[in-house]
Amino acid sequence: MSVVMERPDSTCAAAGGRVPQEVRQRLEDFLAGYCHQIDDGDIDSWPGFFAERCVYEITTRQNVEAGLPIGIMYCEGRGMLEDRIKAMKTANIFEQHVYCHLTGRPEIREEGPASYSLRSNFAIYRTMYTGAAELFATGKYLDTVSLAEGEPFFTRRKVVLDSRSLDTLLVIPF
Amino acid sequence: MSVVMERPDSTCAAAGGRVPQEVRQRLEDFLAGYCHQIDDGDIDSWPGFFAERCVYEITTRQNVEAGLPIGIMYCEGRGMLEDRIKAMKTANIFEQHVYCHLTGRPEIREEGPASYSLRSNFAIYRTMYTGAAELFATGKYLDTVSLAEGEPFFTRRKVVLDSRSLDTLLVIPF
Amino acid sequence: MSVVMERPDSTCAAAGGRVPQEVRQRLEDFLAGYCHQIDDGDIDSWPGFFAERCVYEITTRQNVEAGLPIGIMYCEGRGMLEDRIKAMKTANIFEQHVYCHLTGRPEIREEGPASYSLRSNFAIYRTMYTGAAELFATGKYLDTVSLAEGEPFFTRRKVVLDSRSLDTLLVIPF
Repeated sequence: MSVVMERPDSTCAAAGGRVPQEVRQRLEDFLAGYCHQIDDGDIDSWPGFFAERCVYEITTRQNVEAGLPIGIMYCEGRGMLEDRIKAMKTANIFEQHVYCHLTGRPEIREEGPASYSLRSNFAIYRTMYTGAAELFATGKYLDTVSLAEGEPFFTRRKVVLDSRSLDTLLVIPF
Repeated sequence: MSVVMERPDSTCAAAGGRVPQEVRQRLEDFLAGYCHQIDDGDIDSWPGFFAERCVYEITTRQNVEAGLPIGIMYCEGRGMLEDRIKAMKTANIFEQHVYCHLTGRPEIREEGPASYSLRSNFAIYRTMYTGAAELFATGKYLDTVSLAEGEPFFTRRKVVLDSRSLDTLLVIPF
Repeated sequence: MSVVMERPDSTCAAAGGRVPQEVRQRLEDFLAGYCHQIDDGDIDSWPGFFAERCVYEITTRQNVEAGLPIGIMYCEGRGMLEDRIKAMKTANIFEQHVYCHLTGRPEIREEGPASYSLRSNFAIYRTMYTGAAELFATGKYLDTVSLAEGEPFFTRRKVVLDSRSLDTLLVIPF
């Protein structure tokens, strides 16, 4: 009655898709460090997680499924990320609330020499100055991380939000 | 005044309860792949995570603590899971909202030859077509996963919800 | 235009900050077991996760940033934790709701012989007897765990809440 089903491709359980344990640890440390740095409000360090040549993109699930190329934000190169931080600090909005990032275990694939693609789910909570913690956003990170320079750098971070709408100016990095 | 307390049994920190690192990685990849597959809407692949002979069960914490055998849902065998997916697709309800699963680190025990029991916490977020992300359910997974066929398959997944009530027809797999 | 940015110190990606894989696994198992034990309502076992000489502290992010030494709760020694559990059981409040802890991957540093500092994000969900699951608190754990006695014990757990206010008597351990 029931058919033998093929294991879906996207799981890393498939032989060959596994990266060495030492690489996985480094990449997971990198992702955790990123969350902690942002959550601790160390915004200046944010561009330092990215390679000089990089893409940082925020879009929505709906846009992706509709095949729309334009999302909510698109930055190319670390310089644009630095500009964004400068703008944030000038506007001085970012001190009014704090964030807490939780991410799931990433699926990791080797994409090329010292280059890895990662997919992980995330939930971000926000706490306003006077209030309680609340759910801010959920979605997935689609990352490419390079170890070519010794330590890990994002060459691409694509943030895919589950929701179409956000009640914010997106001043805080995802 | 204070007594030396025995470490609770359920932690895997106890010697002997530890599974080999390579096995842990495979099982954790399996759990992460499961979440991602469902969250990406690839519902057809869902039964493929289960062994031909399996039990998939959804119940509530309250039921478990009261010793009640009947929960919210009980499926035996992969065929029943496939039927469930067919019903979902016919009803065509599942496209109106998307889900995001986050799971905690599993505690893993070897139960027998190539068979492992896992316990992990989860939070599932739901985003309706027009709205913001919201918390949908929390609870724990009590799983048995077999590696006997080379790659991992659930022989049992018992979903224990913290809440007694759910505002849904449970069309999406947990 | 863009400057080479130094990688922030707090990431464990930096060489030398990495702890052996076997130690990481034990510490992560310890943290997961702690969450599961509490979420399963096994409150009596809670002090057993702490060393005889320990500090357990709950404070808020705002207090920490303002440099205020006094937080929400401060316990010194396992005896105080046991007293707290006795008080909880006398008050008998704790059965009315259940909790679900999710924690992010910890950043781990070796602090001294068999002593490790850990930093991890957390989200705690609460489900009242009659209701749905809701977000209860988010924040970070700043832990020191000792392996000197063979198995892990907290010598310090500092819970830093994102929010200034909690609608509870804090009867459940964080």
